[in-house]
Amino acid sequence: MHAPITTARERDPWLQPAAPSGWRRRAFDLVFGTDTPAGRAFDAALIIAIVASVLVTMLDSVAALHARYGGLLRAAEWAFTLLFGAEYLLRLLVVRRPLRYARSFFGGVDLLAVLPSIVSLVLTGTEQLIGIRALRILRVFRVLKLARYVGAAEQMRTALVRSRRKIFVFITTMLVLISVFGAIMYLVEGPEHGFTSIPRAMYWATVTMATVGFGDLTPGTALGQFITTIMILIGYGIIAVPTGIYAAELTSTLTHARLARRCEACGTRGHDAEARFCRQCGAALPSETDAGA
Amino acid sequence: MHAPITTARERDPWLQPAAPSGWRRRAFDLVFGTDTPAGRAFDAALIIAIVASVLVTMLDSVAALHARYGGLLRAAEWAFTLLFGAEYLLRLLVVRRPLRYARSFFGGVDLLAVLPSIVSLVLTGTEQLIGIRALRILRVFRVLKLARYVGAAEQMRTALVRSRRKIFVFITTMLVLISVFGAIMYLVEGPEHGFTSIPRAMYWATVTMATVGFGDLTPGTALGQFITTIMILIGYGIIAVPTGIYAAELTSTLTHARLARRCEACGTRGHDAEARFCRQCGAALPSETDAGA
Amino acid sequence: MHAPITTARERDPWLQPAAPSGWRRRAFDLVFGTDTPAGRAFDAALIIAIVASVLVTMLDSVAALHARYGGLLRAAEWAFTLLFGAEYLLRLLVVRRPLRYARSFFGGVDLLAVLPSIVSLVLTGTEQLIGIRALRILRVFRVLKLARYVGAAEQMRTALVRSRRKIFVFITTMLVLISVFGAIMYLVEGPEHGFTSIPRAMYWATVTMATVGFGDLTPGTALGQFITTIMILIGYGIIAVPTGIYAAELTSTLTHARLARRCEACGTRGHDAEARFCRQCGAALPSETDAGA
Amino acid sequence: MHAPITTARERDPWLQPAAPSGWRRRAFDLVFGTDTPAGRAFDAALIIAIVASVLVTMLDSVAALHARYGGLLRAAEWAFTLLFGAEYLLRLLVVRRPLRYARSFFGGVDLLAVLPSIVSLVLTGTEQLIGIRALRILRVFRVLKLARYVGAAEQMRTALVRSRRKIFVFITTMLVLISVFGAIMYLVEGPEHGFTSIPRAMYWATVTMATVGFGDLTPGTALGQFITTIMILIGYGIIAVPTGIYAAELTSTLTHARLARRCEACGTRGHDAEARFCRQCGAALPSETDAGA
Repeated sequence: MHAPITTARERDPWLQPAAPSGWRRRAFDLVFGTDTPAGRAFDAALIIAIVASVLVTMLDSVAALHARYGGLLRAAEWAFTLLFGAEYLLRLLVVRRPLRYARSFFGGVDLLAVLPSIVSLVLTGTEQLIGIRALRILRVFRVLKLARYVGAAEQMRTALVRSRRKIFVFITTMLVLISVFGAIMYLVEGPEHGFTSIPRAMYWATVTMATVGFGDLTPGTALGQFITTIMILIGYGIIAVPTGIYAAELTSTLTHARLARRCEACGTRGHDAEARFCRQCGAALPSETDAGA
Repeated sequence: MHAPITTARERDPWLQPAAPSGWRRRAFDLVFGTDTPAGRAFDAALIIAIVASVLVTMLDSVAALHARYGGLLRAAEWAFTLLFGAEYLLRLLVVRRPLRYARSFFGGVDLLAVLPSIVSLVLTGTEQLIGIRALRILRVFRVLKLARYVGAAEQMRTALVRSRRKIFVFITTMLVLISVFGAIMYLVEGPEHGFTSIPRAMYWATVTMATVGFGDLTPGTALGQFITTIMILIGYGIIAVPTGIYAAELTSTLTHARLARRCEACGTRGHDAEARFCRQCGAALPSETDAGA
Repeated sequence: MHAPITTARERDPWLQPAAPSGWRRRAFDLVFGTDTPAGRAFDAALIIAIVASVLVTMLDSVAALHARYGGLLRAAEWAFTLLFGAEYLLRLLVVRRPLRYARSFFGGVDLLAVLPSIVSLVLTGTEQLIGIRALRILRVFRVLKLARYVGAAEQMRTALVRSRRKIFVFITTMLVLISVFGAIMYLVEGPEHGFTSIPRAMYWATVTMATVGFGDLTPGTALGQFITTIMILIGYGIIAVPTGIYAAELTSTLTHARLARRCEACGTRGHDAEARFCRQCGAALPSETDAGA
Repeated sequence: MHAPITTARERDPWLQPAAPSGWRRRAFDLVFGTDTPAGRAFDAALIIAIVASVLVTMLDSVAALHARYGGLLRAAEWAFTLLFGAEYLLRLLVVRRPLRYARSFFGGVDLLAVLPSIVSLVLTGTEQLIGIRALRILRVFRVLKLARYVGAAEQMRTALVRSRRKIFVFITTMLVLISVFGAIMYLVEGPEHGFTSIPRAMYWATVTMATVGFGDLTPGTALGQFITTIMILIGYGIIAVPTGIYAAELTSTLTHARLARRCEACGTRGHDAEARFCRQCGAALPSETDAGA
């Protein structure tokens, strides 16, 4: 199958249940497993809870809604904190190496999902308002818990990893161009047209070369407009590069995967990635994962 | 042939004439058929009527034109309503299962094309102005009737369907990035620079990462501009991903279709998608549709 | 060779010299030929004259330069008009079917290059100022004479022609989306936020979905901003489609051209497009044009 | 290996040490070599120095930082000038043909890295403030010294070189479109909507067709908005072209490189670019560089 979901256990071999059987084993399969009906139901419920808790934080930041439904939103917030706290403790309890889990990426994200609310409980007494505002917003980072479920498309990752050197060269080239054009525009336009420093001119150069173009800073002189035109044409050509790199790597990976699929019975090649039987002799084909890719 | 037009009947097997012969059969071939001269002429006339009726609605929304040609535009509008109403009734009459048609996508669109004008007739009496304005604008949705004729390029749809998992991963990644950067910018810039809530900051983050850049909200602090620069560079790299996915799938599909085309007489492969005869022995080639793709 | 230049004569078989020999034959080779040193020198001189004449028109539109160098620019303008007029007459004289040439695309462009200046001579007497301004600007269209020299990359054109149905489907989809979103935004935002008519809202939808984002119109309501976010995400996914189509067609054409290149001596395939000798046996390869592509 | 780093010496055969042994030979290996631990350490230190010196120049352009840390930044600046001056002299001393090096691209960049500071020393006496400001900003160009280290991805360069004709055709087409649409918009909108000259209208056309869209100039008339819509749709289609060209060339290069990798022991083809042993017989594969690409 295309881009198969690798379970958390395949990615992290240390992720083992704390007990071979009993309730902790069953709980392990529930919270870490993805291949049992119960595990899938747990994941679905968790995704809904994550999205709902992030929505609550977002709506709470709207002044009108905060004034009207503040109490309701705070209650929902505490319900989610308790829920994610229970989930975090359960994960620590059922895994064989709790410290290893706590130090992993998802261990950190799971802690981050409950910490801000708990810290805000302590801070309320001391009335540090700025800190509380930051903590309230930090709750949006719960959305990172979703990353557990998008860790799917291995083919996309492979193509990204293979292109990493080309992407590095591309980003370095971009940074050099932004520095040079930023400095030139700071010299040509100067503070009188809003280009008050090189970093600010570089912010403008990034906004322009990436074709965002806010319009908060624009060239005021004819020379500045001419340089901008040149710069945009260069940027226009360069935007093609990362797309081309990624498309080429992905095409190469896909084509290679297809060429490599070979019927073991009759030897026919070039089977479709989704094909399960040989189109010449009808024999079962090896799964795509075995064939390479 | 490249991207063959599939007739409505091939896509929907339930789409059968109500009578095996007689005027209803001839009318069925006229309104649903695409392979007879009469059917093609009907389709051409309908396309012109759709485009003309949408243009009438658009021009009617321009205050100056409404003031000057209001009567004429209203007359044209009623002519189109009668025409599309007659077409809708005819479709219901000649199809074997009228309810099934009425519940299908195109049945809904065909009803939507006449409903607003008819409802507005009732509402005029009760003077509900807002409702009437909405109904008048809803008529633009008649443009969806055109979808019947763009349901053509199966190859494009295949590539889209094959990439659906990758596109889902991409959209989820985008939403996570927009949430995280929106929350950070709301924290950094705050209401004093127009970032009055997280949803509004997320609207800004979408506008920026997709390189639209209206400029109605722009970062006012140096830190905000630095984060924006980072965000744009990430977005710049990410815009490559859907293009790369789609290009790779389409390339793979096209290459595969060519490799799969095989002369039945001599066995030569790699025939061009447009080729009709084998370039080695001159025998007629099977059509592209048979060969897979 | 990659993308060979096809001479004007190959594209248009009717383009024959008026006389088999003599000065008209030599003049024909000079103005229409591209494969003799004299013909190439003539082309180079013409390109320089075109670019220079377009620059003169552009500079003349700058008020400060017009005030200062108006006389000089007018003199240069008349020199170019005489030059292009002489070139046009010469082309008419030396070609076998002058009327056919005059009615062709390049015949029209060559006439357009001299007509505005000559017409302005007549109009000066009648003082029609608007007309003169238009004529002065029309001279920029001389730049279209350059099209004669970019009519090169046949491979690019082949890929574009092959994708024409997909591109048509794409543009129709875009127009349907722009109509629907334009109508919705006109309903949601209304004249009070600048969306004064559906055509104006469609202009805004085009500017937004194509990620231009001027910022002259922006959504003012929360609902409008939410719809804009959805719209941008859809547009972001759709921008990938034409790129993917074009990249896929071009890749397929390139790959096919390589696979098709076969050494006639030893049968080895997969030669590079630039290769001139077989990498296995060293025999000369057939040129790419013969091999297909 | 993917995109191997070519050493400076491979690119420039004239780059030879001045002495076959002794300290000058060791110093040559240090400053020009990239394959010894000492050479790599020197390169790493130089990269850090370049980035730090550019950061100093950037921060110095911020008025608040210049007022507060001016003395410190000036001291750092002089330290970097001495460092790069010493590096430049060392390079001149240890290379066999110093003049050839001084006239090369990197010789010029290395001189440019020290010149502005030294010239500013002379100019301080004469108080030419504008010149000094320009010199201070020119120091950002030290970032070009980094180009020595991004001269890596030969595959990317090959794809760019192969597409050069297509890119040239593309840029010419863009310039023709910008000229024509600029002239039309100057005629339609005119100075009253800010389109004061054709060059200014062309600046706007570039900003619009490249989807930057600052919003400093926007069409004010209905006709201008309609033309802008057409223009954007054309530009939207055209942005696909360079991406398509580059992706196709890169895909073709990558696919070709894979097809060309052939096991010398058993003849199996289609090895992955990263593979080091034949997947059929396990024999060592020739490196990718030997196999072509």
